[in-house]
Amino acid sequence: MLTTGEFSGFETVRYEGPQSETALAYRWYDAGRVVMGRPLGEHLRFAVAYWHSFVMNGADPFGAPTIRRGWMAEGDAMTMARAKADAAFEFFRILDVPFFCFHDRDVVAEDDSLAGTLRRLEEMTAYLGRKMESSRTKLLWGTANLFSHPRFMAGAATNPDPEVFAWSAATVKACMDATQALGGANYVLWGGREGYETLLNTDMGRELEQMGRFLSLVVEYKHRIGFTGQILIEPKPKEPTAHQYDFDAATVYGFLRRFGLEGEVKLNLEANHALLAGHSFEHEIATAGALGILGSLDVNRGDPLLGWDTDQFPNNLHDMTLAMIEVIRAGGLGMGGMNFDARIRRQSIDLDDLVAAHVGAMDLCARAFLIAAQIVEDGRLDAFRTARYAGWERPEAQAMLGAGASLEAIAADALSRDVDPRPRSGGQEKIENMLARFF
Amino acid sequence: MLTTGEFSGFETVRYEGPQSETALAYRWYDAGRVVMGRPLGEHLRFAVAYWHSFVMNGADPFGAPTIRRGWMAEGDAMTMARAKADAAFEFFRILDVPFFCFHDRDVVAEDDSLAGTLRRLEEMTAYLGRKMESSRTKLLWGTANLFSHPRFMAGAATNPDPEVFAWSAATVKACMDATQALGGANYVLWGGREGYETLLNTDMGRELEQMGRFLSLVVEYKHRIGFTGQILIEPKPKEPTAHQYDFDAATVYGFLRRFGLEGEVKLNLEANHALLAGHSFEHEIATAGALGILGSLDVNRGDPLLGWDTDQFPNNLHDMTLAMIEVIRAGGLGMGGMNFDARIRRQSIDLDDLVAAHVGAMDLCARAFLIAAQIVEDGRLDAFRTARYAGWERPEAQAMLGAGASLEAIAADALSRDVDPRPRSGGQEKIENMLARFF
Amino acid sequence: MLTTGEFSGFETVRYEGPQSETALAYRWYDAGRVVMGRPLGEHLRFAVAYWHSFVMNGADPFGAPTIRRGWMAEGDAMTMARAKADAAFEFFRILDVPFFCFHDRDVVAEDDSLAGTLRRLEEMTAYLGRKMESSRTKLLWGTANLFSHPRFMAGAATNPDPEVFAWSAATVKACMDATQALGGANYVLWGGREGYETLLNTDMGRELEQMGRFLSLVVEYKHRIGFTGQILIEPKPKEPTAHQYDFDAATVYGFLRRFGLEGEVKLNLEANHALLAGHSFEHEIATAGALGILGSLDVNRGDPLLGWDTDQFPNNLHDMTLAMIEVIRAGGLGMGGMNFDARIRRQSIDLDDLVAAHVGAMDLCARAFLIAAQIVEDGRLDAFRTARYAGWERPEAQAMLGAGASLEAIAADALSRDVDPRPRSGGQEKIENMLARFF
Amino acid sequence: MLTTGEFSGFETVRYEGPQSETALAYRWYDAGRVVMGRPLGEHLRFAVAYWHSFVMNGADPFGAPTIRRGWMAEGDAMTMARAKADAAFEFFRILDVPFFCFHDRDVVAEDDSLAGTLRRLEEMTAYLGRKMESSRTKLLWGTANLFSHPRFMAGAATNPDPEVFAWSAATVKACMDATQALGGANYVLWGGREGYETLLNTDMGRELEQMGRFLSLVVEYKHRIGFTGQILIEPKPKEPTAHQYDFDAATVYGFLRRFGLEGEVKLNLEANHALLAGHSFEHEIATAGALGILGSLDVNRGDPLLGWDTDQFPNNLHDMTLAMIEVIRAGGLGMGGMNFDARIRRQSIDLDDLVAAHVGAMDLCARAFLIAAQIVEDGRLDAFRTARYAGWERPEAQAMLGAGASLEAIAADALSRDVDPRPRSGGQEKIENMLARFF
Ligand SMILES: [Co+2]
Ligand SMILES: [Co+2]
Ligand SMILES: [Co+2]
Ligand SMILES: [Co+2]
Ligand SMILES: [Co+2]
Ligand SMILES: [Co+2]
Ligand SMILES: [Co+2]
Ligand SMILES: [Co+2]
Repeated sequence: MLTTGEFSGFETVRYEGPQSETALAYRWYDAGRVVMGRPLGEHLRFAVAYWHSFVMNGADPFGAPTIRRGWMAEGDAMTMARAKADAAFEFFRILDVPFFCFHDRDVVAEDDSLAGTLRRLEEMTAYLGRKMESSRTKLLWGTANLFSHPRFMAGAATNPDPEVFAWSAATVKACMDATQALGGANYVLWGGREGYETLLNTDMGRELEQMGRFLSLVVEYKHRIGFTGQILIEPKPKEPTAHQYDFDAATVYGFLRRFGLEGEVKLNLEANHALLAGHSFEHEIATAGALGILGSLDVNRGDPLLGWDTDQFPNNLHDMTLAMIEVIRAGGLGMGGMNFDARIRRQSIDLDDLVAAHVGAMDLCARAFLIAAQIVEDGRLDAFRTARYAGWERPEAQAMLGAGASLEAIAADALSRDVDPRPRSGGQEKIENMLARFF
Repeated sequence: MLTTGEFSGFETVRYEGPQSETALAYRWYDAGRVVMGRPLGEHLRFAVAYWHSFVMNGADPFGAPTIRRGWMAEGDAMTMARAKADAAFEFFRILDVPFFCFHDRDVVAEDDSLAGTLRRLEEMTAYLGRKMESSRTKLLWGTANLFSHPRFMAGAATNPDPEVFAWSAATVKACMDATQALGGANYVLWGGREGYETLLNTDMGRELEQMGRFLSLVVEYKHRIGFTGQILIEPKPKEPTAHQYDFDAATVYGFLRRFGLEGEVKLNLEANHALLAGHSFEHEIATAGALGILGSLDVNRGDPLLGWDTDQFPNNLHDMTLAMIEVIRAGGLGMGGMNFDARIRRQSIDLDDLVAAHVGAMDLCARAFLIAAQIVEDGRLDAFRTARYAGWERPEAQAMLGAGASLEAIAADALSRDVDPRPRSGGQEKIENMLARFF
Repeated sequence: MLTTGEFSGFETVRYEGPQSETALAYRWYDAGRVVMGRPLGEHLRFAVAYWHSFVMNGADPFGAPTIRRGWMAEGDAMTMARAKADAAFEFFRILDVPFFCFHDRDVVAEDDSLAGTLRRLEEMTAYLGRKMESSRTKLLWGTANLFSHPRFMAGAATNPDPEVFAWSAATVKACMDATQALGGANYVLWGGREGYETLLNTDMGRELEQMGRFLSLVVEYKHRIGFTGQILIEPKPKEPTAHQYDFDAATVYGFLRRFGLEGEVKLNLEANHALLAGHSFEHEIATAGALGILGSLDVNRGDPLLGWDTDQFPNNLHDMTLAMIEVIRAGGLGMGGMNFDARIRRQSIDLDDLVAAHVGAMDLCARAFLIAAQIVEDGRLDAFRTARYAGWERPEAQAMLGAGASLEAIAADALSRDVDPRPRSGGQEKIENMLARFF
Repeated sequence: MLTTGEFSGFETVRYEGPQSETALAYRWYDAGRVVMGRPLGEHLRFAVAYWHSFVMNGADPFGAPTIRRGWMAEGDAMTMARAKADAAFEFFRILDVPFFCFHDRDVVAEDDSLAGTLRRLEEMTAYLGRKMESSRTKLLWGTANLFSHPRFMAGAATNPDPEVFAWSAATVKACMDATQALGGANYVLWGGREGYETLLNTDMGRELEQMGRFLSLVVEYKHRIGFTGQILIEPKPKEPTAHQYDFDAATVYGFLRRFGLEGEVKLNLEANHALLAGHSFEHEIATAGALGILGSLDVNRGDPLLGWDTDQFPNNLHDMTLAMIEVIRAGGLGMGGMNFDARIRRQSIDLDDLVAAHVGAMDLCARAFLIAAQIVEDGRLDAFRTARYAGWERPEAQAMLGAGASLEAIAADALSRDVDPRPRSGGQEKIENMLARFF
């Protein structure tokens, strides 16, 4: 086995409980602990992102790479791709993490032609498959990178050039095949450059049609090949294209409805993308839950003082708990999971920074989920909410929402009863105090 | 006629051309000038907002009213409502403006009961009707204020208390009746408090259902009474409620689709609301255009450095022209128009500040429309855009979007042709230079 | 004693420990508990804000008041002022809070003339003084409201009208007298309208001079009357005036330096104002600490998704702990304290919402301080930091900062030694993991 | 002469007037036209930025380079540096632009050692000098790139490692030497990584001291070598480091005051940086003007909907005119100028996009300056402003600002006169209407 051996000094991280003094131990992530009737690990379904963890090198718009790993060296593309895969599976073993996620481009570099590029992916799929045989780590989702290469600079499915649409179709087909071959639970589409820089040169109507058609092709193909995973769209606004079409959960919902795909496609929601769209993470989760399209999560953290996708590892227990409450309220993630679409800081150049970042994030999420479960099971939170809407349980109230109602009948009734509704406290601070006890 | 007479010193503002030295003259707004085959006035359909122009008193969260007009004095509600209406129609006469817009609460204060309040509105509708008989100014739209009174603090249609839903239904019915009686071209719903402050006490799924049902009732009522105007929703995010359900155009589109109302309801788009949602005004217009739901506009201006609805009068010719280009591209506003949902600054306390603000804004919009029309008629802008997508006109390209296509067939074809698309310049700066000549 | 008696149903809130099931008890705020050598209460020095707690009525730019207390009823100004004071001191007794803060206008409404207004303040100062005799609650700071009345619409000290400057000077003098009379520990200036709406009508240079002169007059007066408290400026950007001169800590520092007042005036920093200026609360605290001007805190919370001063009670333990670490690092607050410049939500209309909000916030801050103290006392955090800068302890390194150094000598030395510095990990995720154990 | 010859197809761009139909002609930039007593070119002093125009390749955090020029090919460092310089001077010739600006790293890549790197710079300085002999284009400013290389990841002068301070000192010395050798009018410092990512590992007090010391060394060196240009700091917040110390104009002013350098150092203000700091460009210019530290400008454009430094070419005539008015009010730029710190969009990959972008921006700025000059010369704008402050011209008013005044004397006088200031309109909309006539 070709290996960089860089992770050889790291032991597998174990659950040791909150009091552990071991630097790299789980204090809260006890995968087997039963919570709300299921093992914690099955609620969380953590995944490591190939991209951020094995490719991201610390470069930013103002600076050169700061992070150099053995598997990032120059060299033959396939050799280096295997070295990276070896390192990745060493890393998965250290974390004992149940899932990973990948873009085709993280796995192996492009070749000189479309055919060559797809062949490389096929080879690496086989290689990854062999690695997975001796690993406990499964594939949460695969996806295609349709944004990095210059050919995608004006979009993939929405490109003014139909040849790019064709290229993208061929690539997505291959990535779906690879995902199916590796037993992936989901296939994700993120519209990396599906949007526009200026309306002046853009035909938005046409581009939205192209995007809708592309997604329909994907869904049809999924059924044809019998892929049993979920198709997911990951909404994101503003970056890299100034106006991205998949702005947020509600926008994607409208898009799915327009093309009749709301029963076929769900969402992969990212905390940092929620923030960039002007929402909280819990808002996006609750929205997707209310619309029946909650699929999976990218659990990371943005910086509300900065205006780009910082993709930090999560570290705020309070914020994450609010998100977990909505996950539980929405019925959990099902086939989805929690992917760390997060990168270590540019100055965190040591290998143990990478391990520590994941361990800390897994613990944070586990702890947040445990607290959220306690809050939900305690019952007072939802009891308050139920009481708030209790008036709607009365038959006369339900009738207003029913088929027979009319504006004029409701008006006549309101006048005849001389209604005069009185405001009642929303009790926000009291609820927040109640929650504080669980932290 | 009861009148405050405050506007008696103002002459009707006339079009005098760009070189006019008159302080209060139109330099660009020549309503009868034919542009793109129709009089300019019919493209623009300007409206004065009753609320900002006759009720707004300069109070802000940190300070008391600074603006005092005769019609704002203390007094009997109906007497003061008539005084305000008299002043409003004097003002319309001064501007020679074709339309106005109102909320029920701007027109007359609430009475002690629902019945009394609706009766007051009915009386004032009759009064406004009489004013309109001797005025050229028509009604662009009416609407109901379902957000100022404390009973609405937790929403109107989405309130946890069904009595507020009933109250709101009775009120909207009355406002629709009033709008119809006054020959209004549109009826607008703005979800002033339809949203939530904290998810902890909120059942979003339930509230969205309530809101959908409410809108369906409105649409059914419209048809029953034979109201021939358009029903419009005005999207706005974040204010006054931290999370408003009608976030932006795309969100409302999804909502309409969900309740099967996308053929019944269009949008009233506001520039400042677009900004608060993280969009440009032209983005919202183009989105509504692409989705077939462009209705009407609130042409104002926000401050991108501030985070609330400053509702300033527009003054940036470049920005407004970009919006007008998208209005023209979308086929114009039809029954909609351009309402000045804008208020004079808190320090602009003189009566001529109010007049000047409207004159300046009407001129700005007229000039922007004239430039946009020139740009569109020049043809180079759209020629560039058409050329950019020319590849899609080829039959093979169209076939990919057609019914018979499949991901695997496109992929096979792409591989067989060894496609290798080359990026082509988007030419943004060149286009912007070309546009600069029209300013 | 005139009393509304509204708080008569509330017992004094007591410390009962984390496990207490009492709804209104302190779980963490144990004022007498010794931390870092001093009682917790002396570190925190909590204060209730008269304004938000007894005047704020739930009105917002889109809605009428929702909160009505007995002491807010219509009535004779002095009678109502006394009723409010009575209620306030009942409330202080319930919370057993060591301090309060006030603006003159919260205490009593304006009279018809400057003289009458100042006389009212004087009377109420005497009244407050008598209340304080039988109360444990002291005055953290007083201040003047120079922004609500229309006369201040273009600023107070920076007003284009010198009469407003004069009015403001008379008012501040009176408020300083009142603060001194009541034994206030600090006197605060918040430049509520010291800024501009548009540069077009503004002479910024002149206005900054006026503001500098005004502050100098204040400092001189302080010394003349022997006021031993601190003079504090509270920075805030953007609201209510679009461009406020006291933007943030660093801006005010430059202003103080310019007028030679950096040894005379310190800062009252607010969390929400930091956010609006694009900073974290801890950044503002650390900046003031580094510049030697940390005075006092307004511990509240903003909403990073909204663009205005939401002034919420704090509830995020993680965020508050980061702030408390910087307070400790800066040597504590000295004569300053922690004022709750926070208001209950518009829907939190019950009296117990007001009590709960304060209890929750005091507990949150106390708990955050306890955790921060543990982190600091643990030593690993600062040890990491010290190690990071260890190179600077070498004499050659210190020499570069010393008087004899020159660019060319440093350059020559660097070249002769062929320096080649290697990046070292900043360890952010590891540090954050370490901190997570203390929560 | 080594040359890529890529610009050989471009003629020198000439002033042809507003009606010109030539694609690449100046319509407004008539360098010799006398405005306000001086040639337009001397007011504007345009400069091309070496970095954006010859190095920027379209790469962004989500995508690979899209722009490939001949001089960007792989090759021997000095050969490629000369090719780039040749292309640059061809480009300057095409634009007939009076100035350029550079970072050392744009000019030539690092060598393996500090000595080698400085030697390369020296060689290229000589080469640039020879190019300048046969060119009309002069050097507006030089600067050092102390942020791209990994060694600077934790700052340059503020680095925890003193060896980086030493490296930076040697580099800045060399860049100052180069700037002097090339007759540069200014030397700029931009604190690219002078800031922090997390306070947890940062000693802000220490870092600010290091930064102050560094700047003092620079100023001392300037005097020692007799460099007659200005030393400028370019403020920027948030990027690349989350918290940059040189946040904005007011922050840098405080910093300069602290180290006694306010008479030695001025500011290079960038429009996009102003935006990121929450200010308008004109605010930053007016602030620097009021504080006496206005130096030079980076005239570009940000996108208020995006949160990073988009560095677009300016295209909004209204916004730029507001900035130019403040430039004129502040007395102009003196030895400074207007640098285009702007880059073509990632999709603008053609060479003529680069030329067009500069031509459009120069025209935009020229036109804005001409309009601003007209407005100022018209006099009504400043007359309005002067009238607004007229009260301050009265001796009694001036006395309040004078040495003999005291708070108590002003108060006594105000009371004795029973002052009662009345608000007067700020007239913002009227002023904006007046300005609209000049566009
Ligand atoms: Co992200
Ligand atoms: Co993601
Ligand atoms: Co608005
Ligand atoms: Co509106
Ligand atoms: Co505040
Ligand atoms: Co405050
Ligand atoms: Co920039
Ligand atoms: Co710059």
